[in-house]
Amino acid sequence: MIVTPWEVRGEIDYDRLIQEFGTEKITDQLMARIKKHAEELHYMLRRRIFFSHRDLDWLFDEYDAGRKFYLYTGRGPSGHTHLGHLVPWIFTKWLQDKFDAKLYFQMTDDEKFVFMPELSLEEANSFAYENALDVIALGFDPAKTFIFSDLDYAKTLYREAVKVAKKLTFSTVKAVFGFEADNNVGEIFFTSVQSVPAFIESVKQGRNVPCLIPHAIDQDAHFRVARDVLPKLGYYKPAAIHCRFMPGLGEGGKMSASDPSSSIFTVDKPDTAAAKIMNAFTGGRGNVEDQRLYGGNPDVCNVFSYFYFLMEPDDKALQQRYDDCRRGRLLCGECKACLAERTAEFLRRHQEKREKAREELARFILKD
Amino acid sequence: MIVTPWEVRGEIDYDRLIQEFGTEKITDQLMARIKKHAEELHYMLRRRIFFSHRDLDWLFDEYDAGRKFYLYTGRGPSGHTHLGHLVPWIFTKWLQDKFDAKLYFQMTDDEKFVFMPELSLEEANSFAYENALDVIALGFDPAKTFIFSDLDYAKTLYREAVKVAKKLTFSTVKAVFGFEADNNVGEIFFTSVQSVPAFIESVKQGRNVPCLIPHAIDQDAHFRVARDVLPKLGYYKPAAIHCRFMPGLGEGGKMSASDPSSSIFTVDKPDTAAAKIMNAFTGGRGNVEDQRLYGGNPDVCNVFSYFYFLMEPDDKALQQRYDDCRRGRLLCGECKACLAERTAEFLRRHQEKREKAREELARFILKD
Repeated sequence: MIVTPWEVRGEIDYDRLIQEFGTEKITDQLMARIKKHAEELHYMLRRRIFFSHRDLDWLFDEYDAGRKFYLYTGRGPSGHTHLGHLVPWIFTKWLQDKFDAKLYFQMTDDEKFVFMPELSLEEANSFAYENALDVIALGFDPAKTFIFSDLDYAKTLYREAVKVAKKLTFSTVKAVFGFEADNNVGEIFFTSVQSVPAFIESVKQGRNVPCLIPHAIDQDAHFRVARDVLPKLGYYKPAAIHCRFMPGLGEGGKMSASDPSSSIFTVDKPDTAAAKIMNAFTGGRGNVEDQRLYGGNPDVCNVFSYFYFLMEPDDKALQQRYDDCRRGRLLCGECKACLAERTAEFLRRHQEKREKAREELARFILKD
Repeated sequence: MIVTPWEVRGEIDYDRLIQEFGTEKITDQLMARIKKHAEELHYMLRRRIFFSHRDLDWLFDEYDAGRKFYLYTGRGPSGHTHLGHLVPWIFTKWLQDKFDAKLYFQMTDDEKFVFMPELSLEEANSFAYENALDVIALGFDPAKTFIFSDLDYAKTLYREAVKVAKKLTFSTVKAVFGFEADNNVGEIFFTSVQSVPAFIESVKQGRNVPCLIPHAIDQDAHFRVARDVLPKLGYYKPAAIHCRFMPGLGEGGKMSASDPSSSIFTVDKPDTAAAKIMNAFTGGRGNVEDQRLYGGNPDVCNVFSYFYFLMEPDDKALQQRYDDCRRGRLLCGECKACLAERTAEFLRRHQEKREKAREELARFILKD
């Protein structure tokens, strides 16, 4: 199992990640606390898609005392958005609605450029704005949502990033990220830039404002660094809430950048997406007879995962699908056809909103 | 002898620096080439204050073929400007006049902040603009001179700096600058930013423009890196011309930040400056009788150095002073009184122009 900000590989043991990273499980007590404020629990909480956190108790203590938090999340724009990317963003939108929270959304085009040998700066920067359309299409509040490309907001970010950088030795980034002598100096510096949105609202307001970062657990290394350095600059440690990775469509749930059929991109034609799903790896048996007799295994099925993570927010309907699969009542073909139809429909609606987002883009973008 | 961008210590052997850094001596042939274009030789060339270079022959080949160069120099704004800082700037102004060259003048407030534990970002940034007044007071052409703080021009600079950073490993900066695991990641990244003005005119014009960097030899390490990386980005290697360090007023020519009496600052009151000079270490004898009898030693005299570097552009008068000292005709008291008067007069005129520069500042400053 390898889980770093740049590589996720192998069978993921989430309990082990909690131990290794030193985060905390989201307890029932904490769930109750969230529910008290939000008046409901998002299905991603109920299903433990968001499963781990740092300092959420502190964050709600602050909230209870009348000190609201803001949100920070982001995206490394190395290509088009796929459905897996939407998981934490959809949850972030829910948090924004329920807690009336500002959101800083960072597009780390600088990071993707320095870490990916073949990616040009222009490509990374252009994907930042393509990906922003997907963020906006999810319905974030333009009055409270600030999306920025690191490159195009560099004047503001660099001034704060050098403050983080001054407190951060090569030893530390070597230990946290596993950097070696052949890493480039852009890679070595970068985490300083990723730290900035974790205190930028405090800089703007001139007083400490709590920050909550919803993100996939692979990015934790960056925020361990931020939590170490920010108090040295007089800021709060950011709180965080971590989600699992949505599997891809390939065998073993692999999502591979070199194989576009393993992911569904938000810009895929609905028909193309449907075809990918019809070719997906499932937890089904070798033939219809066996499937009827012994049932399928939704626990290892990528198609079921898509329902679980995104396409079936209704818990009862999801349970029904699970049981029907287990009992051999639901064949993979039918199940895939259903997911294909829902996904195609989702994409049609999303792409419509995504096109409208082009006109709204300027309202969301922070630039120097 | 230690000569790095951050520390100059010990007896400086300039021939050894040429060997160790791999630069070239300015030959008589090259001098003749400069003179052909400039129609004169600046006293800093005649006296070999500028003594070393990289690729000047190539630069003049380009110039002869009708391809003009631009100039780039800079300053680390950790405090007020002293007279030693003016040496390369005065020469740069001469180059601008003689070769009708644009100048990018970089104030590395980011560098000073990350390298100096006690310096705040606000101080460094504020000194950038204080130091800019001294640059402007020297008479640079506002239509062709672009002064910028790294912090306030970061949007433009960072976008280019990451391109340099991507080509630069920790191994390389470790070897060139002697960085270790306890250096901070801002220090490690910084040379990427110092490289940018060496190709920024090429970025702006969309075609390669030769660049000449006049600078004190201690900064050579940065431009070795730039010369290594820039061709990988499709740009020319910058040419450079290197000057010696003007000694301070202390024993052995020491200039010490912790001892303000060892330097004359451009903001010193003329009387204060005069008093510092009257207390300077000289090459004189213990008493007047010995001085009359055996003569003084101008070769180790800081007062003579001030005449040599800055306060006596007339070669004949300088030679006369040298001979008079050697032969015991000129006593240290008289010599210091003369330098004190000239320096006070220089400061009065400079400070007048420096105050006027406040109104002109905006015409010179590049900001995002």
